[in-house]
Amino acid sequence: MSSSTPTSANTIAQAADALMAGLPQFQAQAGGIIVIKYGGSLMRDKLSGQSKHYEDDILGNIAWLKAAGYKPIIVHGGGPAINDALVSFNREPQFINGLRVTDEDTLSVVEMVLSGQINKTIVGRLEKFGCTAMGLSGRDAQLIHAEKKLKDGIDLGRVGTVKTVNTFRFQLLLDHGITPVISPICSDGEGGAFNVNADEVAVAIAVALKAQQFLLLTDVPGVLADVSDPTSLLSELTVSTAQQAMLDGVITGGMIPKIQSVVDSIQQGVGMVRILDGRAPHALLSALVLNGPGGTRIQPDHDL
Amino acid sequence: MSSSTPTSANTIAQAADALMAGLPQFQAQAGGIIVIKYGGSLMRDKLSGQSKHYEDDILGNIAWLKAAGYKPIIVHGGGPAINDALVSFNREPQFINGLRVTDEDTLSVVEMVLSGQINKTIVGRLEKFGCTAMGLSGRDAQLIHAEKKLKDGIDLGRVGTVKTVNTFRFQLLLDHGITPVISPICSDGEGGAFNVNADEVAVAIAVALKAQQFLLLTDVPGVLADVSDPTSLLSELTVSTAQQAMLDGVITGGMIPKIQSVVDSIQQGVGMVRILDGRAPHALLSALVLNGPGGTRIQPDHDL
Amino acid sequence: MSSSTPTSANTIAQAADALMAGLPQFQAQAGGIIVIKYGGSLMRDKLSGQSKHYEDDILGNIAWLKAAGYKPIIVHGGGPAINDALVSFNREPQFINGLRVTDEDTLSVVEMVLSGQINKTIVGRLEKFGCTAMGLSGRDAQLIHAEKKLKDGIDLGRVGTVKTVNTFRFQLLLDHGITPVISPICSDGEGGAFNVNADEVAVAIAVALKAQQFLLLTDVPGVLADVSDPTSLLSELTVSTAQQAMLDGVITGGMIPKIQSVVDSIQQGVGMVRILDGRAPHALLSALVLNGPGGTRIQPDHDL
Amino acid sequence: MSSSTPTSANTIAQAADALMAGLPQFQAQAGGIIVIKYGGSLMRDKLSGQSKHYEDDILGNIAWLKAAGYKPIIVHGGGPAINDALVSFNREPQFINGLRVTDEDTLSVVEMVLSGQINKTIVGRLEKFGCTAMGLSGRDAQLIHAEKKLKDGIDLGRVGTVKTVNTFRFQLLLDHGITPVISPICSDGEGGAFNVNADEVAVAIAVALKAQQFLLLTDVPGVLADVSDPTSLLSELTVSTAQQAMLDGVITGGMIPKIQSVVDSIQQGVGMVRILDGRAPHALLSALVLNGPGGTRIQPDHDL
Amino acid sequence: MSSSTPTSANTIAQAADALMAGLPQFQAQAGGIIVIKYGGSLMRDKLSGQSKHYEDDILGNIAWLKAAGYKPIIVHGGGPAINDALVSFNREPQFINGLRVTDEDTLSVVEMVLSGQINKTIVGRLEKFGCTAMGLSGRDAQLIHAEKKLKDGIDLGRVGTVKTVNTFRFQLLLDHGITPVISPICSDGEGGAFNVNADEVAVAIAVALKAQQFLLLTDVPGVLADVSDPTSLLSELTVSTAQQAMLDGVITGGMIPKIQSVVDSIQQGVGMVRILDGRAPHALLSALVLNGPGGTRIQPDHDL
Amino acid sequence: MSSSTPTSANTIAQAADALMAGLPQFQAQAGGIIVIKYGGSLMRDKLSGQSKHYEDDILGNIAWLKAAGYKPIIVHGGGPAINDALVSFNREPQFINGLRVTDEDTLSVVEMVLSGQINKTIVGRLEKFGCTAMGLSGRDAQLIHAEKKLKDGIDLGRVGTVKTVNTFRFQLLLDHGITPVISPICSDGEGGAFNVNADEVAVAIAVALKAQQFLLLTDVPGVLADVSDPTSLLSELTVSTAQQAMLDGVITGGMIPKIQSVVDSIQQGVGMVRILDGRAPHALLSALVLNGPGGTRIQPDHDL
Repeated sequence: MSSSTPTSANTIAQAADALMAGLPQFQAQAGGIIVIKYGGSLMRDKLSGQSKHYEDDILGNIAWLKAAGYKPIIVHGGGPAINDALVSFNREPQFINGLRVTDEDTLSVVEMVLSGQINKTIVGRLEKFGCTAMGLSGRDAQLIHAEKKLKDGIDLGRVGTVKTVNTFRFQLLLDHGITPVISPICSDGEGGAFNVNADEVAVAIAVALKAQQFLLLTDVPGVLADVSDPTSLLSELTVSTAQQAMLDGVITGGMIPKIQSVVDSIQQGVGMVRILDGRAPHALLSALVLNGPGGTRIQPDHDL
Repeated sequence: MSSSTPTSANTIAQAADALMAGLPQFQAQAGGIIVIKYGGSLMRDKLSGQSKHYEDDILGNIAWLKAAGYKPIIVHGGGPAINDALVSFNREPQFINGLRVTDEDTLSVVEMVLSGQINKTIVGRLEKFGCTAMGLSGRDAQLIHAEKKLKDGIDLGRVGTVKTVNTFRFQLLLDHGITPVISPICSDGEGGAFNVNADEVAVAIAVALKAQQFLLLTDVPGVLADVSDPTSLLSELTVSTAQQAMLDGVITGGMIPKIQSVVDSIQQGVGMVRILDGRAPHALLSALVLNGPGGTRIQPDHDL
Repeated sequence: MSSSTPTSANTIAQAADALMAGLPQFQAQAGGIIVIKYGGSLMRDKLSGQSKHYEDDILGNIAWLKAAGYKPIIVHGGGPAINDALVSFNREPQFINGLRVTDEDTLSVVEMVLSGQINKTIVGRLEKFGCTAMGLSGRDAQLIHAEKKLKDGIDLGRVGTVKTVNTFRFQLLLDHGITPVISPICSDGEGGAFNVNADEVAVAIAVALKAQQFLLLTDVPGVLADVSDPTSLLSELTVSTAQQAMLDGVITGGMIPKIQSVVDSIQQGVGMVRILDGRAPHALLSALVLNGPGGTRIQPDHDL
Repeated sequence: MSSSTPTSANTIAQAADALMAGLPQFQAQAGGIIVIKYGGSLMRDKLSGQSKHYEDDILGNIAWLKAAGYKPIIVHGGGPAINDALVSFNREPQFINGLRVTDEDTLSVVEMVLSGQINKTIVGRLEKFGCTAMGLSGRDAQLIHAEKKLKDGIDLGRVGTVKTVNTFRFQLLLDHGITPVISPICSDGEGGAFNVNADEVAVAIAVALKAQQFLLLTDVPGVLADVSDPTSLLSELTVSTAQQAMLDGVITGGMIPKIQSVVDSIQQGVGMVRILDGRAPHALLSALVLNGPGGTRIQPDHDL
Repeated sequence: MSSSTPTSANTIAQAADALMAGLPQFQAQAGGIIVIKYGGSLMRDKLSGQSKHYEDDILGNIAWLKAAGYKPIIVHGGGPAINDALVSFNREPQFINGLRVTDEDTLSVVEMVLSGQINKTIVGRLEKFGCTAMGLSGRDAQLIHAEKKLKDGIDLGRVGTVKTVNTFRFQLLLDHGITPVISPICSDGEGGAFNVNADEVAVAIAVALKAQQFLLLTDVPGVLADVSDPTSLLSELTVSTAQQAMLDGVITGGMIPKIQSVVDSIQQGVGMVRILDGRAPHALLSALVLNGPGGTRIQPDHDL
Repeated sequence: MSSSTPTSANTIAQAADALMAGLPQFQAQAGGIIVIKYGGSLMRDKLSGQSKHYEDDILGNIAWLKAAGYKPIIVHGGGPAINDALVSFNREPQFINGLRVTDEDTLSVVEMVLSGQINKTIVGRLEKFGCTAMGLSGRDAQLIHAEKKLKDGIDLGRVGTVKTVNTFRFQLLLDHGITPVISPICSDGEGGAFNVNADEVAVAIAVALKAQQFLLLTDVPGVLADVSDPTSLLSELTVSTAQQAMLDGVITGGMIPKIQSVVDSIQQGVGMVRILDGRAPHALLSALVLNGPGGTRIQPDHDL
């Protein structure tokens, strides 16, 4: 069994107190489906070999949550690895009116990196933490069907938007103790693929499964009242207060579509959304089990 | 959800580290059946109203373990409450050659207190901690059949020794998320009852179910090399080293039958036994989840 | 197998004719849930040791019905044994405005007797008749939640009224061939207990499970048109005729709340209610299997 | 529900006493598979229209046993109806060395009568008694495969002997509350049929399913020590005493093959055999439920 | 395994192309319930011994479809065999106002032939083709209840019309890989029987089970625009176009009630109806698997 | 439904005859697990865009077999696409003593191409043919654990050999109608990967699942008695005759390890092996369904 040095008695006592303080929440939530968006920015330093801190922290926490009965689904993005591969394959980025266009060849490289490299690396790391994961893309078993995305009437090529999610097959894997790790390449329903934004895929899965929680791991502390002041964190929002904050200009800029999508997901049945700082140590255990800081938590109106 | 004050970030970090340090053991064990002997001495102060520390600590920890997937079965003893009740009912203790004899009337009072008072109080406390428990005695649903115990040829009356355990019905309750709380009054197979020693009942259940762990909550730190020196704790024993320690006179006196029974249970399929100090704060969380001190752990030879 | 003297051929023929005469009813009902209220008055003589006739008769009949496929649930009351115990424990009865008040200490004694003595005695007797029973109170596994009962604005202490019944867990036991024997002490949802009237508990269980039959074992022949004339039995009532009989003053006095509760239960889904004389030999077999006298039977309007 | 006249209180009391006297046997056996051989001689008077007494009695009793949880399988023979039909179709009986030969045309008529007339008539009668039956022959769903029977080297045509029984499909029907009524025409495994002796088919089914009881309904009181004296009934035999009785010449003549086959079936796992007088009123209820006379009962040695 | 001569490569290639051409339909339909009406006219030549072509072709095709995952239910008629048997039994046909009357005796003969001869012959042939079939009539296990049919106010005796179909039991057999072969003799609910038109029984089963397809095997090419011109086949109809064709006089005479019943069945949930020429070689494989000619196919309006 | 032009009647007749000729084999095998090794050489022309004939033919046939109840598992290799990608990423091939060495960087590229490109392309094509496939590598859900392969004592880097196959998870997917498409990159049990030969992976899966058939799709006609003569095909071998052929020098060179591995797999429980020419049109339908040519079939000794 465990061969590591036992933790000191004092730490144990504090840790146990923290666990007991979090018990009501833990009891209410353990066993629930949690969809986790794990973005490329939190992999950045690691794939370059400089640091593995974030990744091991995040995936280790997920392994712990799985052992305690939560049912995680991880949706990952891509990031710099994709750009490196595109360069290796001499794909010139294409633009129309300033918008990036994804042709078939580019998609092929993106898919190789997302579904063949990053996806399987995460599966391997989770296995190392004792967590049995299955790496899949939206194309597999028709898990996610997408259709062409149109942006301002411009054809962006093989970029799609989610149409349907096969909840039965996700449930099948979860029921058998398997943690799905999802690459956001989706099926076009005719044998081909679309590249879809990972945030969108994660929200679509959370909504389709009526997940208990959608956990958005980011590289900010959460929703800030003043973007330049990390201490201005808004730790608790409801659908109503979030909508008001957008009207009032408290939430601005790039945060608006994120929060809007989060609010929408709650209105479609997701139990709760947490915007967590993936760079903070043990952000997931802190928020879900230890009654500790948990970024911004957004709940339905009636839950507060 | 949880409305208590969040724990401080520093404590969280230490707590999370302790959780991650305990992850391999947690993964290997969560989901396992743990039979917990909870003796009368650990209820003593509480029922008198002086202190509820031990009981709330122990039952709260059990509730947490249940939430994390463990399947606890609690076997409780009696203690001072029984003596109080016997006095109230004017039962004079009977002795033959210095051995206490349990006649039908005494058994009736003992059963009322064990199965009707202590048993239901534990069930209520567990409910308060959010854990659904079912209070049963060995008579119920023919869970445990006993036969008359003979000691040195003397008839001790309605004192029995375990004959059979109905594993199917224990499993049925566990499979449906119910925590059995067992009073050690057992069926004589003909409609009557026997009073059986609670340690013996707990070991019999652990063996019958091939429990992953048998947890003996006591009021000592564990097995001591020198009984007068609490720092001489033997934290790890195997079947072989425990047997040797009894031969060598390291384990002596009243500890011998306890350890012998524990060793027997491991040889009959119980995965591991822990002798824990029930007075220590969070003894169960410390030993099972937080990689902390855990009294004396006794394992099969091949597991070390 | 059976070693008793064979019954005579003539009796056999009559018995078989009676069985065949009851076949249509038996086929329609066997397999159904029957909730049986077994009151303290039918235990009275027995616990004093004077006679065991009623108890063995009633519990033996229940064992037979169970063997034939019925699914009995027994709800028992208390009676003189409670008073005896209260005296032993020197509990002075408390009254406010003439109403008995149950304080915590009294409740503790009542619970010991009901859940620890009477309950387990019934379980033992059923085991003797070959019927596997499980003795539980409303506190166990959160089977029955109660809330404080207010009577004319007076606080009666730990006296409650039923709020919810956990039908799933009753069904689980029944599905596995276990006969629940229920003590009417219920959970207050916060770890404590309420004493609830046994009739009320029985009706609540019957309604929650939409029992096929609710059998009220009493010490009268059934509903009488003239209370002073045992031959004035009303053997068949419907909801409508029962309501009319209350309006017309045929049913009077203490019978009114009983009949009102029975009528309510049928309107909430109980299939049929029988008010049986528990003192009559084989009252249960007579009514359910042998096409014989069956006290007063109350059915929905459309069933006659 | 039941609208018949209630049975008198005195009869009820005696009937209930008989039921309670039979309770231990009833509990041990209800739920068990009982294979019933129902021979043509017990249909004789009825099909001619003279009397329906036996048939209604026997099939009514079976319906009652089914309602009480037994799982009956009925294997029927043919009798005079077959001869009548053969005459209608102008089939001349064929003989070789005095043995009757069944050619294809004769088999076709026999099958029509057994599988199309008698079989469906029994199904209909059982339906009238509220018992859901399914009429099948050994050809259906490959329930029973037979092979050619050779008798003293003579080819008897389409007469077969049982090779295999599909226990899974019998169990499937029983598990869903369906009572199989079996015509003894069996499959030759290649699309054709064999006529097989009904006694042999019944024994083969009982052995294959390890039936709790095989009930041979005959027109004699059971095994008699003196064939000419109906009061010389041997009511209890074991495998050993039956074998001895054959050696000693107590059992003689046509009884020898019947008893030999019965003894064999017990040695292959059938729990018990009863040879009952189908002409006696309520023979089945008497023997199985009412602790009454039950012809000759033959059990394994260790059961007495 | 297969020992027959391999098919030539050229034929294989064409056959495989045909299979692949039919793949989309095959994928959409395999696994579906198909109710097949197999009428007496398609047995005619065979039972006389002149030709077995139709029967072996049809039943072999059904065996193939079963092996590929379809769930067939066969409803058969009678035909000349019934008349032969009636003559043998000297039953004089009875008529009232020109309508044939079925008395009890006649029904008895009809049942023998349908349920005892034709039904079991089909079961045997299917077994020869490796398909496990169970021969049942509507009387068995209360599969089909009928009530008396009144025609122009005349009592036709034991002629019935379908009242209810027990879908659960049909589903049970299908779920366990058993192909029901149904004789159209139905239960009157009181132990007796009614003779029902086989077309009506087949449609009732298809409707009750919401069959994917109802296949009416006939001795015409399908629905013809001009009855005298076999090339005027209407190969595709919808509910609307079929109704219009009846209004327009394209469908006339005896075809009208057949088509009306087919249209009704689709409106009650049957997925599709095919009227196939049972005399054409491999009519079933052609229509369902090989993308070939398929008589007249009638579908819901929205499916074309 | 299907909108393609119906096939001609003559072709239909021949096709149906071929289907019926193959019925006994089809019945015996449909529903069985078939593991298909689909090598890179059969993708060659297609990925270059020159021809899609082989791929569509093979994957279309697999889709048909799936629709008919077979449970296919596809294990694919890589081929030229890997070399192309290695060139793009400037990986210089490394050799020690003439053996190719796979370092971590090379493995990363190989995995991207196998698990991210080829694997998902096959999944997409199968979806186009209406077959729901899930693309996985041996790393996913710990499906296949490998260990380092040592060849002549030389360290070949990340090249592995199969250690264990998780049969439960393969069975789970098959039971839910999902066709696994397996990339031969396997887990090292510690979070890393090994590249394993695809033939070896396919055989290991077939053995672990005791597959009914292992189908090795190659670019030769099968096992030839004379390699230079395509007409010298050995169409039927048993374990014994195959072993003899290797001893006799009939099977030589590169065929020996392939045949040896095939023979081993049969001795470990695989039901049958077929070595098929993947270039031949409809090779799979021909061999499994249409009773046509089927390369070399190798069976256990007792099956011929």
